[in-house]
Formats: sequence, structure tokens, C-alpha cells
Amino acid sequence: MKSETMKLYDDRNDVTLTSYILEDSPELLDGKSRPGIIICPGGAYLNCSDREAEPVALRFAAMGYHAFVLRYSVYYEGKGGMPDMSETLQRKTHCIHPSPMREIGKAMLMVTSRAKEWLLDTRRIVICGFSAGAHNCAMYAVNWDKPVITDYFGEGKEHFRPAAVILGYPLTDYYYMRDVVRDNPTAAGFFAASNTAFLGMAEVTDELFEEVSPVYHVTENTPPMFIWSTASDDLLPIQHSIRMAHALADCNIPFALHIFEEGAHGLSLANQTTSKVASQINEDVAQWINLAEKWLQKRFADKPLYDYV
Amino acid sequence: MKSETMKLYDDRNDVTLTSYILEDSPELLDGKSRPGIIICPGGAYLNCSDREAEPVALRFAAMGYHAFVLRYSVYYEGKGGMPDMSETLQRKTHCIHPSPMREIGKAMLMVTSRAKEWLLDTRRIVICGFSAGAHNCAMYAVNWDKPVITDYFGEGKEHFRPAAVILGYPLTDYYYMRDVVRDNPTAAGFFAASNTAFLGMAEVTDELFEEVSPVYHVTENTPPMFIWSTASDDLLPIQHSIRMAHALADCNIPFALHIFEEGAHGLSLANQTTSKVASQINEDVAQWINLAEKWLQKRFADKPLYDYV
Repeated sequence: MKSETMKLYDDRNDVTLTSYILEDSPELLDGKSRPGIIICPGGAYLNCSDREAEPVALRFAAMGYHAFVLRYSVYYEGKGGMPDMSETLQRKTHCIHPSPMREIGKAMLMVTSRAKEWLLDTRRIVICGFSAGAHNCAMYAVNWDKPVITDYFGEGKEHFRPAAVILGYPLTDYYYMRDVVRDNPTAAGFFAASNTAFLGMAEVTDELFEEVSPVYHVTENTPPMFIWSTASDDLLPIQHSIRMAHALADCNIPFALHIFEEGAHGLSLANQTTSKVASQINEDVAQWINLAEKWLQKRFADKPLYDYV
Repeated sequence: MKSETMKLYDDRNDVTLTSYILEDSPELLDGKSRPGIIICPGGAYLNCSDREAEPVALRFAAMGYHAFVLRYSVYYEGKGGMPDMSETLQRKTHCIHPSPMREIGKAMLMVTSRAKEWLLDTRRIVICGFSAGAHNCAMYAVNWDKPVITDYFGEGKEHFRPAAVILGYPLTDYYYMRDVVRDNPTAAGFFAASNTAFLGMAEVTDELFEEVSPVYHVTENTPPMFIWSTASDDLLPIQHSIRMAHALADCNIPFALHIFEEGAHGLSLANQTTSKVASQINEDVAQWINLAEKWLQKRFADKPLYDYV
């Protein structure tokens, strides 16, 4: 395995793409290409959680995917951890929309530029996110073919299309979220902090909320999606997942939705690899990764790995 | 993830230990130690197969284990592939018993010497082998506490005990194997070649066959074992797994045995990660890794990862 961390901006250390490239062998694919996956950890656009980074990349590497962790622009710039919520956040320009989703586009260009060296199949690059990282992936999934991405980079659509998208406990509807937190001071404080980080203001206009709510922008170009979450999520209500599934169904986009009954927000793989305390282990929820593995296999079944050139 | 390849002998490039070390984080184990696993690929003591190396290591890394691939001494010195069986093998001293099993002992010393740097829990190091690599692990499992290991390295037993052993389609009984191949010229030729590589001669004495058959050397010091294989294995008859289980049962050693009905020899993870052709994928057999994961969790359950210091 070759692992390296690459910067997305020459003059910044906080936005990086870390690769986990599988070794080939005459006994394995013998020069044929493997699919890839770009993983966006969550962290409310304040941080990128380590619990949703390397352990998830390794699980996909163990399925035969070249894996990448994208640490996109977030408020606290560092990696891991949650901030002191008693602090009042200031507007910072580096992490404001549409930078985070553009960084997924940049990551697509970076990995495809080295596809030959890595034996990466550019037609089968999946993006996978958790929580705010899932929101970022969902935003990218409805914007990859639009000028905000294509004109910005001056490249054709064909460079940006993800083959599939995996969303874990996503936020998908900011309008709905605003209504939910209205009577919950703790949630409202957290929501305002995340909005300051991601949108540059605690109080956001209707127009901007609509723009950053992927549920309202699904089209026939939105890639197939696998969504999973827990019905008892106490941070991001399960309605976000259900609304996204509804929007996909309305547009006849292939999708799978797995909602587990019990489980807190942010379980990642829900096993001991991604856990610090026992309460983060949940055998029921931990099944999502196997469901996702089979779903991806089925999607790619017209060209199984071993038949691919 | 940090990955490096270390030599076991300064003057040889063919015997190596490749590490796959998980990154820690304040959000993950925050300085606590993880268990480790040393993987021995198969290859009839002629080669070490790439299909039973990195992909298996990554699967265990994805379970939260620091993983290591040991390429022990084999006849062709290189990695991967099977030899031209029409060639008559010559006696080579570098790969003859007990070198391969001693190299597991050397690997144990190498990894424990860097336990602090890597946050490796030296009380929970598992060894895992396939085919000839499983034979090597089984040999080590019944010899780790004996002078052939301890006196050779001049170190106490406590440095060498594996916490558990995983055997995939092992060879465990050379007497039995000799009887099986007697009426099968192809198998007999392969057996003779492997014996020349591993034992230095095609025709082996009873005493030596007994010495290298782990089924006859199980004691109360043999570590717990997880054995898996396929009943329809056409290269190493399933009786090898059954005889090993019988020997463990006779000594009251905790063990699990999973025999899948159908499946060829050498399936490794039996999924697309370890396959070159479609026939190497077998969804039934591929369940072994999940069974092994749960078995290891149970064995280590008195001290789950997140409670361990």
C-alpha cells in the first residue's frame, strides 16, 4: 500500500487528500484498474473527524477500492475534535460555500490525473461522506455538472461525475433544519455555529438555505445514491435522509436507503475500529458497510473487476 | 497509516515483514494500544502468494488491528506466483525447516520491540496463515515455547506466545498427506517439490514427517485457534483441518472450526479484493473473515479495546 498526503492548495496545510493505494500483482488484477472512493469526514463544517477518515478508507481498501480521505475546508482548519461551543464564531472566508464542494471537484481532478500510475478506473470513482461530509457529497452530487464546478475549473463535465454516492447520516434540507432547531436552544446554538462556519452568517437568507439544500436540486444527472442513518439520531433528524430519498425517487434516480432503528449520530463504522467508548459500538448499525459493499458490487456488476480492462 | 517493509536478515531481501500501522487520534484510542496480527501467505514453501498478503492485512487493519505481512523463507525467494512444476528442484538450505517457523519468532521480537512507538498491545498478537503459511503458523503454535525458538533467540518464552492463531486451509499432518498422494501422480509431484523446498529432500523420513506435523505436538500451551477451510479442497484434503481440530479438542484448547461445503483451495478472502478470475469469488466462503472477526472479539472481550490501557 502506498499512502501519501497531498495539499489541495500550495499555500495551505489544512485542506488535504490522503491516498491509500493498493498494490497490484500478477496474481491480482495484473495491470487492470480498480475503482476508487473519496471519503469526506463529518464535523459540522467546523472540523473533519478522524473517526470518519482513515478507518473508513481502510475498510473500503479492504474491499478492493483505492481509497482517499479528503479533508476539505472547515472552520477550525485542524483535524479532529469538536470545538468549544461557548465561543462565538467569527466569519472566516476560507471555509465558506461553495469551497467545500469545489474541493471534491478538485480531488476528482487530482485522482484522475494520476489514474494511470495508480491503476485507478476513472469511470468508477465513488464519493462517500458522513454528516456534514455527507452534506458536502450531496451538494457535489447535484452540482458536479454545473458551472459552479465546471466553469470554475475550466474543465468538461466528464471529469467530475461520481459513479455513485454514499451518504451516512446526512444533512440535506436547511429549511427543515431551521424549523427543527427553533424550539431547541442547544441545537439552535450548534446550528448557528455551523452556519457561521459554512455560510458566513448565523442568520441565513431563504435563498441561501435553498441553494445549499441538495433535496431541492436533484436532477436526472444526480448519481445513484446509498443513504444510511439511524431513526433515533438526536443531532440530525432522520427526516433529512427520508427527504433526500423522496427527492431521488421523484427523479427516478437509483438509490438504497437503510435506516436503523436505534443509534446515536456519528457512529461511523460503529465497530471497535472507529470507537473510543463502548457506546459507539453498535452491531446492528455496523451492518451498513456490508450493505454498501453489496450495493456497489451490484452497481458495478456489468463490469466486474476481473473483467475490466 | 504507516507502511514500511523491514528485512529479517541484513544480507537477504527475500525475507521481509511489511507493517500496516493504524494512525491514532484523540478521537480514537487516544494513546491506548491496539492488538496486532502477523500474516503468513501460502505457496507450498515455494513462494509467498500476494493474494494472501496485503489484501488480508488491510481487512484486519479495517478491524482495528495493526497488521503485518511476513514473507518467510521459500524456495523461489521472490514473491507471488507458482513455479514451473516440470523443473526438478535442488536442495537449498535457506528455506529448510525450522527456518520458516523461526522467522515467525523473529517477527514477534521485531514487532514487540517497537510496541511503544506503534501503540501495539504485545499481549494480543495474533498469527494468521494460509495453506503452507497456515502450516507454518501451526508449527509455530506448537513450538513457540520450545528451545527451537527460545534457545535459538536466547529470549524467554514470554516474548513468543501468540494470543491466538488463525489457520486457512492448512496442511497439518504429513503422514496423512503421504498416504493421500500415493495414488495421485500430479499431487505426488507437487508434494515432492514442496518437500524438497521445505525439508531438503523429496523422500522424507518418518521421524522428520512426525516432527513437522503439528497435529502430533499440541500441548496445553498451544494457543486458541480458529480454523477454516472447504470440504471440496482438491489440493489439501479437508482431513488436515479436521485432524487439527481433533488434536486441539483432545488437549482442551479453545478452538473454532468452519468448514464450507464448496470451494477450491486457496480462496483467501474469496472476494473481489483477492481475486484475479471470477472463480476465486465465493460469497459463502467469504463469510470466514466475519466469523474470525467475531471470534477474536470474543477472545479479547475481557478487555475490549476501549477499556484497555
